[in-house]
Amino acid sequence: MKRILINELVENEESKISGFASKIRDTKYMIFVILKDRTGSIQVSLDKGTQEELCKELDGVIAGSVIEFEGKMVLSEYVKQGGKEFIPSKVNVLSKAEASPLEENANIDTRMDYRWIDLRSEKNQLMLNVQSTFVEGMREHCYKEGFTEIHTPKLIGAASESGSDVFEVKYFDRKAYLAQSPQFYKQMALASGLERVFEVAPCFRAENSNTNRHATEFTSFDIEFAYIDSFEDVMDFEEDLIIAGLSKVKERYGDKIKELFDKEVIVPTKPFPRIKLEDLYKELEKRYNYQIPEFDVGDMNAEAEGLAYKYAMEEFGHEFIFITDFKKTKRAFYHMRKNDIPQGFDLIWRGAEITSGAQREHRYEELKKQCDEKGLTKDVEFYLQFFKYGCPPHGGFAIGVDRFNMLLLGLSIKEEMFIFRGPNRLEP
Amino acid sequence: MKRILINELVENEESKISGFASKIRDTKYMIFVILKDRTGSIQVSLDKGTQEELCKELDGVIAGSVIEFEGKMVLSEYVKQGGKEFIPSKVNVLSKAEASPLEENANIDTRMDYRWIDLRSEKNQLMLNVQSTFVEGMREHCYKEGFTEIHTPKLIGAASESGSDVFEVKYFDRKAYLAQSPQFYKQMALASGLERVFEVAPCFRAENSNTNRHATEFTSFDIEFAYIDSFEDVMDFEEDLIIAGLSKVKERYGDKIKELFDKEVIVPTKPFPRIKLEDLYKELEKRYNYQIPEFDVGDMNAEAEGLAYKYAMEEFGHEFIFITDFKKTKRAFYHMRKNDIPQGFDLIWRGAEITSGAQREHRYEELKKQCDEKGLTKDVEFYLQFFKYGCPPHGGFAIGVDRFNMLLLGLSIKEEMFIFRGPNRLEP
Repeated sequence: MKRILINELVENEESKISGFASKIRDTKYMIFVILKDRTGSIQVSLDKGTQEELCKELDGVIAGSVIEFEGKMVLSEYVKQGGKEFIPSKVNVLSKAEASPLEENANIDTRMDYRWIDLRSEKNQLMLNVQSTFVEGMREHCYKEGFTEIHTPKLIGAASESGSDVFEVKYFDRKAYLAQSPQFYKQMALASGLERVFEVAPCFRAENSNTNRHATEFTSFDIEFAYIDSFEDVMDFEEDLIIAGLSKVKERYGDKIKELFDKEVIVPTKPFPRIKLEDLYKELEKRYNYQIPEFDVGDMNAEAEGLAYKYAMEEFGHEFIFITDFKKTKRAFYHMRKNDIPQGFDLIWRGAEITSGAQREHRYEELKKQCDEKGLTKDVEFYLQFFKYGCPPHGGFAIGVDRFNMLLLGLSIKEEMFIFRGPNRLEP
Repeated sequence: MKRILINELVENEESKISGFASKIRDTKYMIFVILKDRTGSIQVSLDKGTQEELCKELDGVIAGSVIEFEGKMVLSEYVKQGGKEFIPSKVNVLSKAEASPLEENANIDTRMDYRWIDLRSEKNQLMLNVQSTFVEGMREHCYKEGFTEIHTPKLIGAASESGSDVFEVKYFDRKAYLAQSPQFYKQMALASGLERVFEVAPCFRAENSNTNRHATEFTSFDIEFAYIDSFEDVMDFEEDLIIAGLSKVKERYGDKIKELFDKEVIVPTKPFPRIKLEDLYKELEKRYNYQIPEFDVGDMNAEAEGLAYKYAMEEFGHEFIFITDFKKTKRAFYHMRKNDIPQGFDLIWRGAEITSGAQREHRYEELKKQCDEKGLTKDVEFYLQFFKYGCPPHGGFAIGVDRFNMLLLGLSIKEEMFIFRGPNRLEP
């Protein structure tokens, strides 16, 4: 008999179901198993009097075990699980679990030690599926818009961008490094004649910091596309992309997210509010008496991000806000400048920066000048070559998939990732 | 004016197009530019007599440069490019190229040095899009079948499977390693309650070998799913997955692949032929007088793979063939065994093994026994834990995206990858 899913059960029809036993209750006359598969749970009820043989199969079987039952679903007014219960005629224990070492209220570090057990909760299952769905929605949008998916190398020959945060790899008789982002290579793809590319892949950052937001390895959804007129086109595209991702999540899991995480999935309207950094500073001062510290002038910091979100909600009733016109010393050398202003943006959502984007400088001479200015020319020599033999104007951005999902569900990064990696965490 | 694509041009309609100039021919009375975007090429014709100003814009501009033209497409019987030419009224050179250092018949290593120029050829553009489309088709199939996409860590704490081929990473004050495959973690996902998972991600192999098939980094499409009855279910799913991928490729690019690569995209019929290794040996001996060398008994080798393909074509008129019933000493410790026979398979296509799959051993005690037998228990201690607290029966496989695409188009791995990585190749 072929297995069917719990939510496909039809009353009184002979069926086979299987899943994890999330609870097993052994009473005087009955054994009750709460069986859970990816579509839901059902109570399986065994009568010790009339189903002695079947009950024997469950001897010593505890919650966490994986069990297959054949039998019939019946409707019963006594049962909580949606008024349905399953009366088995056959029991097959597929995997006998030992007692879980993970206590209910374990702290996050212990939970990570036993991540595969921790992830079994309904909330965590939903979280993983929401992440997958968000990426699915964005990818669909990219395909629809004529994007090509690329796979750029993670092993690179030179420590790019900022050497200090790069992992070093023993590569035969020399050194390699792990790419912090596909930035240089997605731009190379455009110099190669592809006009619109995306990549979903791991990024590596050797930052020795333990916060609720940072991981040494995380998944990035990277976009780069050519023949733009300005960075406005990049922001426009990002709006559509996020709307596509969130729409898919809302449609499929909106109610469930509300129920389990008490978070509303709000599909944003277009256009997202946009504000120049200088103007934002003024608003933050006027409204919240906040002044950016000297050190951060020309840039944002965590507190300003929180307030920018507050401002966006109050002024525009919008969860997202683009901030533009940063100071050039605070932005990457490859951002195009116009009148000395970097043609890029940050996007703030729910109090945090979720993405940074820009039109890139595609003209070799200009790029080299900006690179010299930051003293990086030697480090990124190979990258500069990409622009010598023709390259269209282009721009792009990246969305940290984990950070996005974390904000969507109100979690810390450790709780959100399938398997978290930090300076003190390489296991499991 | 908004840019439109070359294949969208309408006769006599004022339009803006842009792309790489793949050729510029400067004659006595005319300048001809072959402009190329992602949808095709068109000849742009400038009359030196009547369009002196425009022609001046193209002074010193050579092939490889990126140019934007405004003007009108007209039909002309004198023009080769589909009988269409573009008469510009405005020229804007977006990026002025230096002369390409890449000669037409450069060898593959020089081509890789200038990969971003090399990739501009029509063949290479098609190749990248075929790869993207193949993955798109397979991913769609996974979504449709209720799979969740996961992102497993590439930084791992222990050198798994076979320590010798693993890259070592300096990880703060300790060592980490780069995952050779997501094998252990995709299985963990199933112990976590997800029932069907896939991942498309880089794999790393520190093999110091220079062949036409091997790379130190490549993209793997990994599948793992639970509640299977046997490894037959795994093969069934792989058939559907490959059919989905190839159908999408054939539909979108079949004719173009035939034209540029002289390769037929054949969407295979179900079921793919399946044969036991022993029986295959007999067929190869009978038909081709081939005997497997002592060293490889119980396994396949490159020559046998080539002949197995020949056999599949001759006997079944099928490009694919599954080989089952390998010897247990030749297979990974985590393959489930039945009567001492590993419940796994190799899939051969066009003379090469493209995938290896199996039902996995999900029972802790059995798994530990098989692990002990291979002397691996200490190395994979963390992995064994995943099976102690309940895990459904499951199986899976991986498809090397690059190897698949390489066989599809008849290329070497160096030609096929966006950017190839080998023992002597970390650039660009």
